[in-house]
Amino acid sequence: MIDHVLITGGAGFIGSHLADRLLARGHRVTVYDNFSTGFVEFLGDARSQPGFTLIEGDLLDEAALAKALSGCDLVFHLAANADVRFGTAQPRKDLEQNTIATFNLLEAMRANGVRRIAFASSGSIYGETSVIPTPEDAPFPVQTSLYGASKLAGEGLIAAYCEGFDFQSWIFRFVSIVGERYTHGHVFDFYKSLARDPTTLHVLGNGRQKKSYLYVADCVEAMLAALERAQDKVNVFNLGTEEYVQVEDSIAIITAHLGLSPRRTYAGGERGWIGDNPFIFLDTTRIRALGWAPRVGIRQGIIRTVDWLKANPWIYQRRT
Amino acid sequence: MIDHVLITGGAGFIGSHLADRLLARGHRVTVYDNFSTGFVEFLGDARSQPGFTLIEGDLLDEAALAKALSGCDLVFHLAANADVRFGTAQPRKDLEQNTIATFNLLEAMRANGVRRIAFASSGSIYGETSVIPTPEDAPFPVQTSLYGASKLAGEGLIAAYCEGFDFQSWIFRFVSIVGERYTHGHVFDFYKSLARDPTTLHVLGNGRQKKSYLYVADCVEAMLAALERAQDKVNVFNLGTEEYVQVEDSIAIITAHLGLSPRRTYAGGERGWIGDNPFIFLDTTRIRALGWAPRVGIRQGIIRTVDWLKANPWIYQRRT
Repeated sequence: MIDHVLITGGAGFIGSHLADRLLARGHRVTVYDNFSTGFVEFLGDARSQPGFTLIEGDLLDEAALAKALSGCDLVFHLAANADVRFGTAQPRKDLEQNTIATFNLLEAMRANGVRRIAFASSGSIYGETSVIPTPEDAPFPVQTSLYGASKLAGEGLIAAYCEGFDFQSWIFRFVSIVGERYTHGHVFDFYKSLARDPTTLHVLGNGRQKKSYLYVADCVEAMLAALERAQDKVNVFNLGTEEYVQVEDSIAIITAHLGLSPRRTYAGGERGWIGDNPFIFLDTTRIRALGWAPRVGIRQGIIRTVDWLKANPWIYQRRT
Repeated sequence: MIDHVLITGGAGFIGSHLADRLLARGHRVTVYDNFSTGFVEFLGDARSQPGFTLIEGDLLDEAALAKALSGCDLVFHLAANADVRFGTAQPRKDLEQNTIATFNLLEAMRANGVRRIAFASSGSIYGETSVIPTPEDAPFPVQTSLYGASKLAGEGLIAAYCEGFDFQSWIFRFVSIVGERYTHGHVFDFYKSLARDPTTLHVLGNGRQKKSYLYVADCVEAMLAALERAQDKVNVFNLGTEEYVQVEDSIAIITAHLGLSPRRTYAGGERGWIGDNPFIFLDTTRIRALGWAPRVGIRQGIIRTVDWLKANPWIYQRRT
């Protein structure tokens, strides 16, 4: 039975929603976060709950991590350098914060007898696969980003710990997640730009990149469904919706909702940045077979995100 | 054009053969090795050649590495913690010597303008795949060993550097390699045991694990063929023969060649150790399509290995 859950990166976008949901279900929750990209504001509700503990700590700090793990039944490992775009500017960051941090976590778990881990991986690890929609057992992919490579390394380590040290794991390959507390990505960048200057919008790439988005509450429910209903040694699930949109479509949804008609300029090229994947669309048959389905579509997810950003200008004013 | 080649792990089994072959073809060769598992004796021929340089250095020593890379056109990255069996005893070793070392090498290459890398990966990264013989684009595998996970991480980093920093790479997924200067693996362990006590032989697992072996000179020729004839950004090749043998068969070849009839005892189980793969057999259609084929079969490869071990008892007397 899973009672006490530790969430690395629990002060982040997805982690804080997960914390709220687990607390609502009666779990004890410890959030372990170094606040490099998380916000204590996201834990406002969680902190008022009796079963909640907040620990400010880094995954590279092995002593603090070991202490935090004491008494936990499961770790949700969501902490990561989560921005796929900046990999080539700071390649060591993906190595340290994703690959080495995941290794440190696994070692600390092993030392403390915690052997269940759920991991936030990414659809980025499929690189530019030729199989779309992409299933979990797609042909062995070639990596195209340092972020994807670091997530692949994390998955590999976790699976090896399952075989070598009798761990059990749930690995989730996400599309982009949207919703309340959203702090980075296309919708964030577009909204922030429009808040500054509603008359023009600059688009990385040609605007025709195809992306899929999943609403954060649906993402959280999917992870909990998998934890309850999938009991292999290594359980791998794509998480996404059965739709995708072009970047152009996202912009149209945002601007229509805001009543704006900005002039659009384009950087050009079919990729928004080096390592950008022009078409991400995951096959979610496996998670749907567990009875889960998203309740919020891409359009509604984007609108809820925009409404939240509008009501929380501090988030894009504080972020550079 | 490739003139000057740096070989990490060039004092090892495969690396020293590669150094000899490249020198014979007129290349300049720098061997970079920390001698953790390499032997200066393997470079006896190489050191007498004018185009040869030997540098004792570690891949975690970034300054020494940068200096060694100066003027090189291509790096053969063979240095690694190469023993798949000890992963669970020292998990940090695979992380440091394989994953982090590969990252350091890539960063040093980038800083020094060296952008071509050939990498010794492993068939271990296919885990316990259901597709046998296993092609390069087999279904996305689940890792079963820390060694495989570290090689997967290395492959991912290299591919990401190709996309992000305009590198070109040749990634080779080996079966077990045998031949002169062979220093670890089944044949080594069996020979060493028989040299100590010819009357009994203890076998890890049930002896029915199926393995494939490639003769070292064939392995070197395959890598050079791929470098000459494959010019994609990321070139991935399985290297192996079109045969496999059971561990029992290997033992029969060794003992028949030595004229011994030891009593065999078995640890039992279908795996020799945690993370051992009971059946490794790679599809080599892709490398064969370049015109390469192995000249030495498994039986002959094992016999040559045994003859070399017999003539070089220092290798198994020195090794613990």
